Amino acid sequence: MYKATVLYGQPDDPAAFDAYYESTHTPIVKKMPGLTGWTVSRFDPAASGAPSSYYLGAELYAPSREALLAALDSPEGHAAVEDIPNFASGGVTFLFGEVRTMIPVEGVRA
Amino acid sequence: MYKATVLYGQPDDPAAFDAYYESTHTPIVKKMPGLTGWTVSRFDPAASGAPSSYYLGAELYAPSREALLAALDSPEGHAAVEDIPNFASGGVTFLFGEVRTMIPVEGVRA
Repeated sequence: MYKATVLYGQPDDPAAFDAYYESTHTPIVKKMPGLTGWTVSRFDPAASGAPSSYYLGAELYAPSREALLAALDSPEGHAAVEDIPNFASGGVTFLFGEVRTMIPVEGVRA
Repeated sequence: MYKATVLYGQPDDPAAFDAYYESTHTPIVKKMPGLTGWTVSRFDPAASGAPSSYYLGAELYAPSREALLAALDSPEGHAAVEDIPNFASGGVTFLFGEVRTMIPVEGVRA
């Protein structure tokens, strides 16, 4: 299984980020063909109260690197990537890698 | 479901990092009580050949924030965290957040 991780920096206006992500970006990503998983985590502040290094992380899964790149290279994938600058005021970091399961993850299936 | 993400920066000596992670760090993490999942991804270079922003990402799962913090606060959790400086020559970033499933992830269970 292969995964793209999208890490969003702290946005200028978190409420606006959340509203856009929910109402506009999510329906666009859901149209991407070939995804076999998608999770999103909003990161909590540190115990000190300091903001986390990133605001939100999204993980897109596909059976292989080729399948994930094909999903991103589809018209729907292009639309999803091109939508990111519309809300990611804190910048964005992409990471791509094969997922190795060390302990099977319980409860990921909805 | 709650998740801790551990992002490791590019190490000075990737082969030494890998050997230590596999032979020493992994058995320590596997002793942590209460984890309901653990995945590891080594990140691929960018299409340009540039190194990825991080070398490796580990994700530790538990049913709740409280359960994950309890796992980290156990003697085995302390041992795992205290082992990190022994190999993480590129630094480490921690992120903590609730996992929201947008598309159920297939194939995460081993």
